[in-house]
Amino acid sequence: MQSVVNPGDHVIDATMGNGHDTLFLSQLVHTTGHVSAFDIQPTAIKSTAQLLSDNQIFDDNYTLYQVSHSKISEVIPKEHKIKAAIFNLGYLPGGDKTIITHHETSIPAIKQCLNLLETHGLVIVVLYYGHPGGEDEKKAIIDFAQSLDQHEFNVLQYQFINQIQAPPICLAFEKR
Amino acid sequence: MQSVVNPGDHVIDATMGNGHDTLFLSQLVHTTGHVSAFDIQPTAIKSTAQLLSDNQIFDDNYTLYQVSHSKISEVIPKEHKIKAAIFNLGYLPGGDKTIITHHETSIPAIKQCLNLLETHGLVIVVLYYGHPGGEDEKKAIIDFAQSLDQHEFNVLQYQFINQIQAPPICLAFEKR
Repeated sequence: MQSVVNPGDHVIDATMGNGHDTLFLSQLVHTTGHVSAFDIQPTAIKSTAQLLSDNQIFDDNYTLYQVSHSKISEVIPKEHKIKAAIFNLGYLPGGDKTIITHHETSIPAIKQCLNLLETHGLVIVVLYYGHPGGEDEKKAIIDFAQSLDQHEFNVLQYQFINQIQAPPICLAFEKR
Repeated sequence: MQSVVNPGDHVIDATMGNGHDTLFLSQLVHTTGHVSAFDIQPTAIKSTAQLLSDNQIFDDNYTLYQVSHSKISEVIPKEHKIKAAIFNLGYLPGGDKTIITHHETSIPAIKQCLNLLETHGLVIVVLYYGHPGGEDEKKAIIDFAQSLDQHEFNVLQYQFINQIQAPPICLAFEKR
Protein backbone atom coordinates (compact mmCIF):
# COMPACT_ATOMS: atom_id res chain seq x y z
CA MET A 1 0.00 0.00 0.00
CA GLN A 2 2.87 2.38 0.86
CA SER A 3 4.44 1.78 -2.56
CA VAL A 4 1.19 2.59 -4.41
CA VAL A 5 -0.42 5.47 -2.48
CA ASN A 6 1.19 8.89 -2.74
CA PRO A 7 0.46 12.34 -1.33
CA GLY A 8 -2.51 13.87 -3.18
CA ASP A 9 -4.26 10.55 -3.93
CA HIS A 10 -7.91 9.77 -3.27
CA VAL A 11 -8.41 6.49 -1.41
CA ILE A 12 -11.21 4.58 0.32
CA ASP A 13 -11.40 2.86 3.70
CA ALA A 14 -14.39 0.60 3.08
CA THR A 15 -14.55 -0.75 6.64
CA MET A 16 -13.79 2.09 9.00
CA GLY A 17 -14.21 0.20 12.29
CA ASN A 18 -11.94 1.73 14.88
CA GLY A 19 -10.33 4.01 12.27
CA HIS A 20 -6.79 2.67 12.27
CA ASP A 21 -6.72 2.16 8.48
CA THR A 22 -8.38 5.55 7.95
CA LEU A 23 -5.54 7.13 9.92
CA PHE A 24 -2.90 5.08 8.08
CA LEU A 25 -4.34 6.10 4.68
CA SER A 26 -4.67 9.76 5.76
CA GLN A 27 -0.97 9.81 6.55
CA LEU A 28 -0.13 8.32 3.14
CA VAL A 29 -2.24 10.77 1.10
CA HIS A 30 -1.06 13.64 3.29
CA THR A 31 -2.70 17.05 3.36
CA THR A 32 -3.16 17.18 -0.43
CA GLY A 33 -5.11 13.89 -0.67
CA HIS A 34 -8.42 12.62 0.60
CA VAL A 35 -9.74 9.53 2.39
CA SER A 36 -13.39 8.51 2.05
CA ALA A 37 -14.26 6.11 4.87
CA PHE A 38 -17.40 4.00 5.31
CA ASP A 39 -19.18 2.30 8.20
CA ILE A 40 -22.82 1.84 9.10
CA GLN A 41 -22.19 2.06 12.85
CA PRO A 42 -22.33 5.48 14.54
CA THR A 43 -19.68 4.38 17.08
CA ALA A 44 -17.21 3.82 14.21
CA ILE A 45 -17.70 7.38 12.96
CA LYS A 46 -17.24 8.75 16.45
CA SER A 47 -14.09 6.83 17.36
CA THR A 48 -12.50 7.38 13.94
CA ALA A 49 -13.14 11.14 14.10
CA GLN A 50 -11.52 11.18 17.55
CA LEU A 51 -8.50 9.14 16.40
CA LEU A 52 -7.92 11.41 13.39
CA SER A 53 -8.27 14.52 15.50
CA ASP A 54 -5.85 13.14 18.10
CA ASN A 55 -3.34 12.69 15.27
CA GLN A 56 -3.73 16.19 13.82
CA ILE A 57 -5.52 14.99 10.68
CA PHE A 58 -7.92 17.77 9.63
CA ASP A 59 -11.40 17.20 8.27
CA ASP A 60 -10.74 18.64 4.83
CA ASN A 61 -8.55 15.55 4.28
CA TYR A 62 -11.25 12.98 4.97
CA THR A 63 -14.97 12.29 4.82
CA LEU A 64 -16.56 9.76 7.18
CA TYR A 65 -19.74 8.28 5.70
CA GLN A 66 -22.26 6.51 7.92
CA VAL A 67 -23.29 4.51 4.87
CA SER A 68 -22.97 0.84 3.89
CA HIS A 69 -19.93 0.17 1.73
CA SER A 70 -22.34 -1.44 -0.75
CA LYS A 71 -23.41 2.13 -1.56
CA ILE A 72 -19.97 3.53 -2.35
CA SER A 73 -20.98 4.12 -5.98
CA GLU A 74 -23.92 6.25 -4.81
CA VAL A 75 -21.60 8.49 -2.82
CA ILE A 76 -18.41 8.68 -4.88
CA PRO A 77 -18.97 9.91 -8.44
CA LYS A 78 -17.47 7.56 -11.02
CA GLU A 79 -15.25 10.30 -12.46
CA HIS A 80 -13.60 10.51 -9.06
CA LYS A 81 -10.99 7.77 -9.50
CA ILE A 82 -9.27 6.20 -6.49
CA LYS A 83 -5.70 4.96 -6.09
CA ALA A 84 -6.55 2.40 -3.43
CA ALA A 85 -9.15 0.89 -1.13
CA ILE A 86 -8.92 -1.25 2.01
CA PHE A 87 -11.45 -3.79 3.28
CA ASN A 88 -11.26 -5.69 6.57
CA LEU A 89 -13.98 -8.29 6.26
CA GLY A 90 -15.51 -10.64 8.80
CA TYR A 91 -15.58 -9.32 12.33
CA LEU A 92 -13.63 -6.51 13.91
CA PRO A 93 -10.62 -8.16 15.62
CA GLY A 94 -10.92 -7.45 19.31
CA GLY A 95 -14.54 -6.38 18.80
CA ASP A 96 -17.99 -7.94 18.85
CA LYS A 97 -17.97 -11.20 16.83
CA THR A 98 -21.73 -10.98 16.25
CA ILE A 99 -21.28 -7.86 14.13
CA ILE A 100 -19.96 -9.27 10.88
CA THR A 101 -19.79 -8.39 7.21
CA HIS A 102 -21.64 -10.43 4.57
CA HIS A 103 -20.68 -11.23 1.00
CA GLU A 104 -24.08 -10.00 -0.21
CA THR A 105 -22.87 -6.48 0.56
CA SER A 106 -19.07 -6.86 0.58
CA ILE A 107 -18.79 -8.23 -2.98
CA PRO A 108 -20.81 -5.34 -4.50
CA ALA A 109 -18.65 -2.97 -2.44
CA ILE A 110 -15.42 -4.51 -3.78
CA LYS A 111 -16.79 -4.34 -7.35
CA GLN A 112 -17.64 -0.65 -6.92
CA CYS A 113 -14.11 0.07 -5.70
CA LEU A 114 -12.59 -1.91 -8.60
CA ASN A 115 -14.68 0.21 -10.99
CA LEU A 116 -13.28 3.40 -9.44
CA LEU A 117 -9.67 2.21 -9.49
CA GLU A 118 -6.94 4.02 -11.43
CA THR A 119 -4.52 1.96 -13.55
CA HIS A 120 -2.00 0.28 -11.19
CA GLY A 121 -4.28 1.14 -8.29
CA LEU A 122 -4.79 -1.41 -5.53
CA VAL A 123 -7.70 -2.86 -3.56
CA ILE A 124 -6.62 -4.82 -0.48
CA VAL A 125 -9.10 -7.19 1.15
CA VAL A 126 -8.24 -8.81 4.50
CA LEU A 127 -10.55 -11.72 5.28
CA TYR A 128 -11.14 -12.80 8.87
CA TYR A 129 -13.22 -15.96 8.78
CA GLY A 130 -12.87 -17.67 12.17
CA HIS A 131 -16.50 -16.94 13.12
CA PRO A 132 -19.91 -18.42 12.30
CA GLY A 133 -20.65 -17.54 8.66
CA GLY A 134 -17.02 -16.63 8.03
CA GLU A 135 -16.29 -19.58 5.76
CA ASP A 136 -19.25 -18.65 3.52
CA GLU A 137 -18.05 -15.09 3.03
CA LYS A 138 -14.47 -16.30 2.45
CA LYS A 139 -15.53 -18.80 -0.21
CA ALA A 140 -17.81 -16.32 -1.99
CA ILE A 141 -15.13 -13.63 -2.10
CA ILE A 142 -12.37 -15.96 -3.30
CA ASP A 143 -14.71 -17.33 -5.99
CA PHE A 144 -15.46 -13.76 -7.07
CA ALA A 145 -11.75 -12.87 -7.11
CA GLN A 146 -10.88 -15.92 -9.22
CA SER A 147 -13.55 -14.96 -11.74
CA LEU A 148 -11.98 -11.59 -12.60
CA ASP A 149 -10.45 -11.24 -16.06
CA GLN A 150 -6.66 -11.62 -15.76
CA HIS A 151 -6.24 -9.02 -18.51
CA GLU A 152 -8.04 -6.46 -16.36
CA PHE A 153 -6.78 -7.28 -12.84
CA ASN A 154 -3.94 -9.15 -11.18
CA VAL A 155 -5.32 -10.83 -8.06
CA LEU A 156 -2.75 -12.03 -5.53
CA GLN A 157 -3.86 -14.14 -2.55
CA TYR A 158 -1.55 -14.44 0.45
CA GLN A 159 -1.71 -15.72 3.99
CA PHE A 160 0.44 -17.13 6.78
CA ILE A 161 -0.36 -20.83 6.62
CA ASN A 162 1.32 -22.27 9.72
CA GLN A 163 -0.58 -20.27 12.33
CA ILE A 164 -3.24 -21.78 14.50
CA GLN A 165 -6.65 -20.04 14.80
CA ALA A 166 -7.53 -19.27 11.16
CA PRO A 167 -4.97 -16.62 10.17
CA PRO A 168 -6.51 -13.93 7.93
CA ILE A 169 -6.31 -14.25 4.14
CA CYS A 170 -5.25 -11.21 2.12
CA LEU A 171 -6.32 -10.50 -1.44
CA ALA A 172 -4.63 -7.77 -3.46
CA PHE A 173 -6.41 -6.62 -6.64
CA GLU A 174 -4.24 -4.56 -8.96
CA LYS A 175 -5.85 -2.76 -11.91
CA ARG A 176 -3.84 -3.50 -15.06
CA MET B 1 14.65 -11.64 -1.51
CA GLN B 2 16.31 -8.29 -2.36
CA SER B 3 15.36 -6.93 1.05
CA VAL B 4 16.88 -9.92 2.89
CA VAL B 5 20.05 -10.83 0.97
CA ASN B 6 23.01 -8.48 1.25
CA PRO B 7 26.54 -8.40 -0.15
CA GLY B 8 28.69 -10.95 1.70
CA ASP B 9 25.88 -13.41 2.42
CA HIS B 10 25.94 -17.14 1.76
CA VAL B 11 22.86 -18.37 -0.13
CA ILE B 12 21.67 -21.52 -1.88
CA ASP B 13 20.03 -22.08 -5.26
CA ALA B 14 18.51 -25.51 -4.67
CA THR B 15 17.24 -25.96 -8.23
CA MET B 16 19.86 -24.55 -10.58
CA GLY B 17 18.09 -25.37 -13.88
CA ASN B 18 19.09 -22.78 -16.44
CA GLY B 19 20.94 -20.73 -13.83
CA HIS B 20 18.82 -17.58 -13.80
CA ASP B 21 18.31 -17.66 -10.03
CA THR B 22 21.98 -18.50 -9.49
CA LEU B 23 22.87 -15.36 -11.44
CA PHE B 24 20.28 -13.27 -9.59
CA LEU B 25 21.59 -14.47 -6.20
CA SER B 26 25.23 -13.94 -7.27
CA GLN B 27 24.44 -10.32 -8.04
CA LEU B 28 22.78 -9.87 -4.62
CA VAL B 29 25.64 -11.38 -2.58
CA HIS B 30 28.16 -9.55 -4.76
CA THR B 31 31.86 -10.38 -4.81
CA THR B 32 32.08 -10.82 -1.03
CA GLY B 33 29.34 -13.47 -0.82
CA HIS B 34 28.84 -16.97 -2.10
CA VAL B 35 26.13 -18.94 -3.92
CA SER B 36 25.99 -22.74 -3.59
CA ALA B 37 23.85 -24.12 -6.43
CA PHE B 38 22.52 -27.66 -6.90
CA ASP B 39 21.27 -29.75 -9.81
CA ILE B 40 21.65 -33.41 -10.73
CA GLN B 41 21.72 -32.70 -14.47
CA PRO B 42 25.09 -32.05 -16.15
CA THR B 43 23.42 -29.71 -18.67
CA ALA B 44 22.31 -27.46 -15.79
CA ILE B 45 25.88 -27.13 -14.53
CA LYS B 46 27.13 -26.34 -18.02
CA SER B 47 24.54 -23.71 -18.93
CA THR B 48 24.72 -22.06 -15.49
CA ALA B 49 28.53 -21.81 -15.64
CA GLN B 50 28.20 -20.22 -19.08
CA LEU B 51 25.52 -17.75 -17.93
CA LEU B 52 27.59 -16.69 -14.90
CA SER B 53 30.72 -16.31 -17.00
CA ASP B 54 28.83 -14.24 -19.59
CA ASN B 55 27.79 -11.93 -16.75
CA GLN B 56 31.29 -11.51 -15.28
CA ILE B 57 30.54 -13.55 -12.17
CA PHE B 58 33.77 -15.25 -11.11
CA ASP B 59 34.01 -18.77 -9.78
CA ASP B 60 35.27 -17.83 -6.34
CA ASN B 61 31.75 -16.41 -5.78
CA TYR B 62 29.85 -19.62 -6.48
CA THR B 63 30.03 -23.40 -6.36
CA LEU B 64 27.94 -25.51 -8.73
CA TYR B 65 27.22 -28.96 -7.27
CA GLN B 66 26.07 -31.80 -9.51
CA VAL B 67 24.35 -33.29 -6.47
CA SER B 68 20.70 -33.82 -5.52
CA HIS B 69 19.36 -31.01 -3.34
CA SER B 70 18.32 -33.74 -0.89
CA LYS B 71 22.04 -33.97 -0.06
CA ILE B 72 22.62 -30.29 0.75
CA SER B 73 23.40 -31.17 4.38
CA GLU B 74 26.16 -33.55 3.22
CA VAL B 75 27.82 -30.76 1.25
CA ILE B 76 27.27 -27.61 3.32
CA PRO B 77 28.58 -27.89 6.89
CA LYS B 78 25.93 -27.00 9.45
CA GLU B 79 28.09 -24.21 10.92
CA HIS B 80 27.96 -22.54 7.52
CA LYS B 81 24.68 -20.63 7.97
CA ILE B 82 22.78 -19.31 4.96
CA LYS B 83 20.76 -16.11 4.56
CA ALA B 84 18.45 -17.50 1.88
CA ALA B 85 17.60 -20.37 -0.44
CA ILE B 86 15.46 -20.60 -3.58
CA PHE B 87 13.57 -23.65 -4.88
CA ASN B 88 11.70 -23.88 -8.18
CA LEU B 89 9.76 -27.12 -7.88
CA GLY B 90 7.82 -29.12 -10.43
CA TYR B 91 9.13 -28.86 -13.97
CA LEU B 92 11.42 -26.32 -15.52
CA PRO B 93 9.14 -23.74 -17.22
CA GLY B 94 9.91 -23.86 -20.92
CA GLY B 95 11.78 -27.15 -20.43
CA ASP B 96 11.03 -30.86 -20.49
CA LYS B 97 7.85 -31.59 -18.49
CA THR B 98 8.91 -35.20 -17.93
CA ILE B 99 11.84 -34.09 -15.78
CA ILE B 100 10.17 -33.13 -12.53
CA THR B 101 10.99 -32.80 -8.85
CA HIS B 102 9.42 -35.07 -6.24
CA HIS B 103 8.42 -34.34 -2.67
CA GLU B 104 10.38 -37.37 -1.45
CA THR B 105 13.53 -35.39 -2.20
CA SER B 106 12.31 -31.78 -2.22
CA ILE B 107 10.90 -31.83 1.34
CA PRO B 108 14.17 -33.16 2.86
CA ALA B 109 16.00 -30.50 0.82
CA ILE B 110 13.75 -27.71 2.16
CA LYS B 111 14.23 -29.03 5.72
CA GLN B 112 17.99 -29.00 5.31
CA CYS B 113 17.91 -25.40 4.12
CA LEU B 114 15.62 -24.38 7.00
CA ASN B 115 18.16 -25.96 9.40
CA LEU B 116 20.94 -23.86 7.88
CA LEU B 117 18.97 -20.60 7.93
CA GLU B 118 20.11 -17.55 9.89
CA THR B 119 17.55 -15.67 12.00
CA HIS B 120 15.34 -13.59 9.65
CA GLY B 121 16.72 -15.60 6.74
CA LEU B 122 14.35 -16.66 3.97
CA VAL B 123 13.61 -19.82 1.99
CA ILE B 124 11.46 -19.19 -1.11
CA VAL B 125 9.72 -22.14 -2.76
CA VAL B 126 7.96 -21.64 -6.09
CA LEU B 127 5.66 -24.56 -6.90
CA TYR B 128 4.74 -25.36 -10.51
CA TYR B 129 2.14 -28.10 -10.42
CA GLY B 130 0.41 -28.15 -13.84
CA HIS B 131 1.93 -31.50 -14.78
CA PRO B 132 1.26 -35.17 -13.98
CA GLY B 133 2.30 -35.69 -10.35
CA GLY B 134 2.35 -31.95 -9.69
CA GLU B 135 -0.71 -31.94 -7.44
CA ASP B 136 0.87 -34.63 -5.21
CA GLU B 137 4.06 -32.64 -4.71
CA LYS B 138 2.07 -29.43 -4.11
CA LYS B 139 -0.12 -31.04 -1.46
CA ALA B 140 2.81 -32.71 0.31
CA ILE B 141 4.82 -29.48 0.44
CA ILE B 142 1.92 -27.33 1.65
CA ASP B 143 1.11 -29.94 4.32
CA PHE B 144 4.74 -29.86 5.41
CA ALA B 145 4.77 -26.04 5.46
CA GLN B 146 1.59 -25.90 7.56
CA SER B 147 3.12 -28.29 10.08
CA LEU B 148 6.04 -25.99 10.96
CA ASP B 149 6.03 -24.44 14.43
CA GLN B 150 4.81 -20.83 14.14
CA HIS B 151 7.23 -19.86 16.91
CA GLU B 152 10.14 -21.01 14.77
CA PHE B 153 9.06 -19.97 11.25
CA ASN B 154 6.60 -17.60 9.57
CA VAL B 155 5.29 -19.32 6.45
CA LEU B 156 3.55 -17.07 3.92
CA GLN B 157 1.77 -18.62 0.93
CA TYR B 158 0.94 -16.42 -2.06
CA GLN B 159 -0.23 -16.84 -5.62
CA PHE B 160 -2.10 -15.07 -8.39
CA ILE B 161 -5.51 -16.68 -8.26
CA ASN B 162 -7.28 -15.36 -11.36
CA GLN B 163 -4.90 -16.75 -13.96
CA ILE B 164 -5.76 -19.69 -16.14
CA GLN B 165 -3.29 -22.61 -16.45
CA ALA B 166 -2.35 -23.30 -12.81
CA PRO B 167 -0.34 -20.20 -11.82
CA PRO B 168 2.60 -21.11 -9.54
CA ILE B 169 2.22 -21.00 -5.77
CA CYS B 170 4.93 -19.29 -3.73
CA LEU B 171 5.86 -20.20 -0.17
CA ALA B 172 8.13 -17.93 1.88
CA PHE B 173 9.63 -19.43 5.05
CA GLU B 174 11.14 -16.85 7.40
CA LYS B 175 13.25 -18.03 10.34
CA ARG B 176 12.06 -16.24 13.49
